[in-house]
Amino acid sequence: MAEKITPRSENYSDWYIDIVTQAKLADYSPVRGSMVIRPRGYAIWEKVQSALDTMFKETGHENAYFPLLIPEEFMRREAEHVEGFAPELAVVTHGGGQELDEPLVIRPTSETIIWSMYKKWIQSYRDLPLLINQWANVMRWEKRTRLFLRTSEFLWQEGHTAHATAEEAEEETKTMLNVYKTFAEEYMALPVLTGVKSENEKFAGAIDTYAIEALMQDGKALQAGTSHFLGQNFAKAFDVSFQNKEGKLEHVWASSWGVSTRLIGALIMAHSDDSGLVLPPRLAPTKVAVVPIFRNKTKEQVMAYAEKIFGEIKEEVGGLPKSVILDTDEQNSPGWKFAEYEMLGVPVRVEIGPRDMENNKVMVVRRDTKEKILMDASEAPAKIPRLLEEIQQGLFQKAKAFREENSRTAESYDEFREIFSGDGGKGFVTAAWNGDPAVEDRIKGETKATIRVLPFGNEEEARGKTCIFTGEPAKHMAVFARAY
Amino acid sequence: MAEKITPRSENYSDWYIDIVTQAKLADYSPVRGSMVIRPRGYAIWEKVQSALDTMFKETGHENAYFPLLIPEEFMRREAEHVEGFAPELAVVTHGGGQELDEPLVIRPTSETIIWSMYKKWIQSYRDLPLLINQWANVMRWEKRTRLFLRTSEFLWQEGHTAHATAEEAEEETKTMLNVYKTFAEEYMALPVLTGVKSENEKFAGAIDTYAIEALMQDGKALQAGTSHFLGQNFAKAFDVSFQNKEGKLEHVWASSWGVSTRLIGALIMAHSDDSGLVLPPRLAPTKVAVVPIFRNKTKEQVMAYAEKIFGEIKEEVGGLPKSVILDTDEQNSPGWKFAEYEMLGVPVRVEIGPRDMENNKVMVVRRDTKEKILMDASEAPAKIPRLLEEIQQGLFQKAKAFREENSRTAESYDEFREIFSGDGGKGFVTAAWNGDPAVEDRIKGETKATIRVLPFGNEEEARGKTCIFTGEPAKHMAVFARAY
Ligand SMILES: [Zn+2]
Ligand SMILES: [Zn+2]
Repeated sequence: MAEKITPRSENYSDWYIDIVTQAKLADYSPVRGSMVIRPRGYAIWEKVQSALDTMFKETGHENAYFPLLIPEEFMRREAEHVEGFAPELAVVTHGGGQELDEPLVIRPTSETIIWSMYKKWIQSYRDLPLLINQWANVMRWEKRTRLFLRTSEFLWQEGHTAHATAEEAEEETKTMLNVYKTFAEEYMALPVLTGVKSENEKFAGAIDTYAIEALMQDGKALQAGTSHFLGQNFAKAFDVSFQNKEGKLEHVWASSWGVSTRLIGALIMAHSDDSGLVLPPRLAPTKVAVVPIFRNKTKEQVMAYAEKIFGEIKEEVGGLPKSVILDTDEQNSPGWKFAEYEMLGVPVRVEIGPRDMENNKVMVVRRDTKEKILMDASEAPAKIPRLLEEIQQGLFQKAKAFREENSRTAESYDEFREIFSGDGGKGFVTAAWNGDPAVEDRIKGETKATIRVLPFGNEEEARGKTCIFTGEPAKHMAVFARAY
Repeated sequence: MAEKITPRSENYSDWYIDIVTQAKLADYSPVRGSMVIRPRGYAIWEKVQSALDTMFKETGHENAYFPLLIPEEFMRREAEHVEGFAPELAVVTHGGGQELDEPLVIRPTSETIIWSMYKKWIQSYRDLPLLINQWANVMRWEKRTRLFLRTSEFLWQEGHTAHATAEEAEEETKTMLNVYKTFAEEYMALPVLTGVKSENEKFAGAIDTYAIEALMQDGKALQAGTSHFLGQNFAKAFDVSFQNKEGKLEHVWASSWGVSTRLIGALIMAHSDDSGLVLPPRLAPTKVAVVPIFRNKTKEQVMAYAEKIFGEIKEEVGGLPKSVILDTDEQNSPGWKFAEYEMLGVPVRVEIGPRDMENNKVMVVRRDTKEKILMDASEAPAKIPRLLEEIQQGLFQKAKAFREENSRTAESYDEFREIFSGDGGKGFVTAAWNGDPAVEDRIKGETKATIRVLPFGNEEEARGKTCIFTGEPAKHMAVFARAY
């Protein structure tokens, strides 16, 4: 039997870490702030990469690779950028046995190094748009870490695009936000809110930051991806200009956008339960585990029967070598195995015992609902892909219903404070707000709630309304939550 | 017309760099020693990754991710390891605005950090074998760099496996050497020698290093991949032991193996010519470029005809969005485009002009031989995939013939010295050698030739022979070359 995990109701945070470590997704490393992504966790990341990378390529992007180390001076060229990142930098001072003339920082993000190259590559409107993405590791020094959610080093992708006009760059920013939304909803089975970030929450160096925000089971929000309209800030900092069709020089317009291994944390927290990990089938490295149940005298027959059905299911489900597995282990009991596959988040388990064999049946068990379905052995292989799709949709619908139950509008600051009293997450709360960053700061201090997004079109909805925090005219209908 | 590149015969080194930069595969970065891999270069690396990763998974390996930063102290635990890598380390001394208590090094390779984790994960023979691979960036400080071939930061994969017995670990080492050989020959169209490295050339910390060695067009050898049998060295350094089936504690046995973005350098140097890059089709991001040729009055008709044929070819060739491209540009002349696709190494170009259209023909041009083949438009889509395969095989055969012409045996040190007189590469030279590292050092000093491999079974062939360098009995038939 797998180790016992802390129930969600008892301690959500311990529950999360128990799942990460006991499902062997990640482990603490000897270097403070860094994590090790174990094969079971990395296999999920590979699924994430594959799905996103396909979407990036379909929208015209290419991948490239830029240096890990950035001259410290580059970071200082964009004033807001250095202010945002300076406290989190890791600095290389020695290389090849010698002290460096100029310190180098490990990239916390690559705008600066990339725009220093764009200066070489962009001269004319014919060089635009330039649509590049990078899959890479980045480093942001953290004191307190939580596996997947907050670590000094993490893996991510960062898109960096250059355009001839502000409109094009803004359109790209929104296109990529929608790619993220589609990915979150269709692959992660995670409904997300989209919108603009407030001044307090936007990226250091951006004009506007757009984000997708998801709700976790504890009622806290998690920012799952961001897409930034950078205006001409980095083009000016690195003096990147192009000759337009009329022969005039103009600074280039920019976007950047990224998601990280943090998504795996979101995935875990959104769907899992007290038995362990629950994974949406499209991102599950192993989708089906076939578990023969036998005693010594039935072993050979049951194994042969199970192997045949395993082969047929594999044929139908397809995918990589471990997409469908046959459990041939003889050391652990069937009960132990069932608990183990629940812990590991395998979406469908197929149990095959001597009785099933006699009746030409198999027992198919859903991980999400734990429902047991007796199927004809001849029908199971064709039915299982459809069942996997049903589970995928079911998880999304469940998460969506949960979010709806945990979304409300506060009509007064009293009501708002009442909602955010006590510990833990409290869902999404929409409120009319005057748009003042100082007010946002005060609310955060008093309630730990921050503005997650200003939904598209919220200004129109705010028209004529009164800010619940100040009594002044409202500018925005803002969505607040406590957040990871 | 594309910029002119330096002919191979004039200056091989300039020719190489001209191709890298003009085919936009890579660029120099503002950080000394680091390179930027541009989209056209990175797309080749993605093809390499995809093919190798499939082979790794088929041989039972899983991917994982370990921290970039390693405690400096870890590097010192294995005596040969630190001696080999200390001069090349980049050191992080500050993080989050503070000086670190202990300096961290950027991984030059990950044996130490990985074995520190294996200590946590391995207790019993049931935890073995552990077959993990990592795709990552590593850093080895270099003063003199050459794009792809030698840069401080490079991308690679590093496999790190743990086994219960020496035999199993050695078998794994050889299995992975064969995976590399298969990949080099079947994907890179690059014939390789395999064998063991001499003491002087082996990995710092290994018992034995196996390698694949390829011959470049200038007669120099290039080490294209290595696979190391590490014995119990790292298990002892990190105290990793397991309980065997008899209940006794034993140290674990290890292998590690890797290939890097250096392979792209090898790919360029093996096949390209004075017109630019030549790529084997299986690793070419764009396999076919369809180029319509028209004047104003024929434009619409020719474009429609070309689009139809483009669609049919794409259907047959398959692959990612840019696998087959249609050139719709109207600014550059057909002649300019032909030169450009030759420079970029697109294996097959399809030219379609008004005359072709009238006759229901297309002109298909091979990049490798520049042969022009007039095909019926109705037959071209089905014939092109076969032509791509023919090009793949042709490149391999050509490289193999070149290697054979440039491989010989030296019967005396006079003959050996004669071969290695003057500048440049001189191919592979086999010679009987007494096995003394000091002799190898002397030969290197006098001829710049080093032992590339001791081929499998060379000891038997050396039996009864005399070392051509010392007159002593020979232990090995060693293969020498000047090398990258
Ligand atoms: Zn400027
Ligand atoms: Zn020990």
